[in-house]
Amino acid sequence: MGRVTERRKVIRIRDGAVSTRPDTLVAEEPLEIRLNGKPLAITMRTPGDDFALAAGFLVSEGVLGEAHELQNIVYCAGATVDGSNTYNIVDVKTAPGVSIPDITLERNVYTTSSCGLCGKASLDAVRTTARWAIDDGEAAPVRLEPELLASLPDRLRASQRVFDRTGGLHAAALFTEDGELLDIREDVGRHNAVDKLVGRALQSGALPLSRMILLVSGRASFELAQKAVMAGIPVLAAVSAPSSLAVDLAAESDLTLVGFLRGASMNVYAGEHRIALRTAAAHG
Amino acid sequence: MGRVTERRKVIRIRDGAVSTRPDTLVAEEPLEIRLNGKPLAITMRTPGDDFALAAGFLVSEGVLGEAHELQNIVYCAGATVDGSNTYNIVDVKTAPGVSIPDITLERNVYTTSSCGLCGKASLDAVRTTARWAIDDGEAAPVRLEPELLASLPDRLRASQRVFDRTGGLHAAALFTEDGELLDIREDVGRHNAVDKLVGRALQSGALPLSRMILLVSGRASFELAQKAVMAGIPVLAAVSAPSSLAVDLAAESDLTLVGFLRGASMNVYAGEHRIALRTAAAHG
Repeated sequence: MGRVTERRKVIRIRDGAVSTRPDTLVAEEPLEIRLNGKPLAITMRTPGDDFALAAGFLVSEGVLGEAHELQNIVYCAGATVDGSNTYNIVDVKTAPGVSIPDITLERNVYTTSSCGLCGKASLDAVRTTARWAIDDGEAAPVRLEPELLASLPDRLRASQRVFDRTGGLHAAALFTEDGELLDIREDVGRHNAVDKLVGRALQSGALPLSRMILLVSGRASFELAQKAVMAGIPVLAAVSAPSSLAVDLAAESDLTLVGFLRGASMNVYAGEHRIALRTAAAHG
Repeated sequence: MGRVTERRKVIRIRDGAVSTRPDTLVAEEPLEIRLNGKPLAITMRTPGDDFALAAGFLVSEGVLGEAHELQNIVYCAGATVDGSNTYNIVDVKTAPGVSIPDITLERNVYTTSSCGLCGKASLDAVRTTARWAIDDGEAAPVRLEPELLASLPDRLRASQRVFDRTGGLHAAALFTEDGELLDIREDVGRHNAVDKLVGRALQSGALPLSRMILLVSGRASFELAQKAVMAGIPVLAAVSAPSSLAVDLAAESDLTLVGFLRGASMNVYAGEHRIALRTAAAHG
């Protein structure tokens, strides 16, 4: 593994000047995730942290929530005709007694019944599968200064190792409420980067991720908000725009959702009680 | 429908100043695509052009290639408990005699056999399901001036109606080899925007899209390169980075792949014979 980047020849055109040189690209390969031997999903991902990706995916789907529910994860050897291992198929074995919800082969299938498929049904499905309500733990409620939030994107970028070389990776990072960077993952797929973070947290027994801030380098879709809720993360901050359904899920789940986090500017779409606002207008 | 954007209250923080105002967000809702009554996939998409999205998805999956193979597409009414229509489930009926490949419930399942899952297998699967080799039709081969390519992103942005308001949409556009904008679609998911373009082309009998340029606002993943190949499009240009597997698929399929198309600069990753390069170094 370690195939996070690959080299390819590229022809560069810069104001009419043409040159040929090797270029570094983000690696993309399919990963099949099996649950107790049964194929569950295939995702196009950047190789690396595959076990964490599989574990985090299963947290998002409501299958796993605590480290002891995970028996082991293995690469399926002999996956090719000649018996060699592609390292692109993992099998997650759950511990005895763990009940497996009725999940299907499709990412984003939150409702498998034929009646009702809409944003509302998606919100309901997250609510019914979430193991933990988002709360801030036993201490005082989380309350973040805007200045602290504003400082996070620069620290994300400073820690992003591959993006500078390829421009092709999404990043996701976990920060404490004091702004300490705990972990950062990069992937060609934004949902994979978050799954890898959450999966590592599961493996180390750190779920739910109370009092944490999840920062993503791009947009905040419903899927990312769902992953934050399923991991018990109280604050999701995105450098770019959220979607309507992400905002609805955040509002319903008491998830603080911050978008367009750039420089000293940001938009707060939900859960503003965790942001230290200093003007009365904010409560209008 | 027409729910391309939705309004939500947002708290804006700008250099410490706080204000509350309505904000326009890109709409996101699930769409279930059924094939002859059988659920096939669910995608989170921006409502609108749903029939085109479903048709284009089935082109990408190798099910549809010509307009006459499509009998009709309908919204499934009575999809909710109270019998109202969510407009979030569509059923695609194929014409009698159309054979349905063995496709599964999962986007990106190109190989369902248990032996072999790797980038190579993904490339093979596209090759075996593609209806048309990419060719430039009966006229002289397509040959594009870099200046023409460089002009396309600005024209894409000028035509992008929703992005300026929400910042949350991916765009995909079809141009002729002379740089004429034929169609543009926007969606919260980049693959959906391309599916909508391709689906509309299928419905109007325009496949394969020989001699066309597909421009996407973001990155060029394997999935987008696959969609270009399946629609017979010879040139894929992306404003941002490609992945390794997208480059490999382009090289194998004779797809011209241009990335980092910004200002007068671009990188050509494959199919450079369609780009009018003026320096010998380009052929080194």
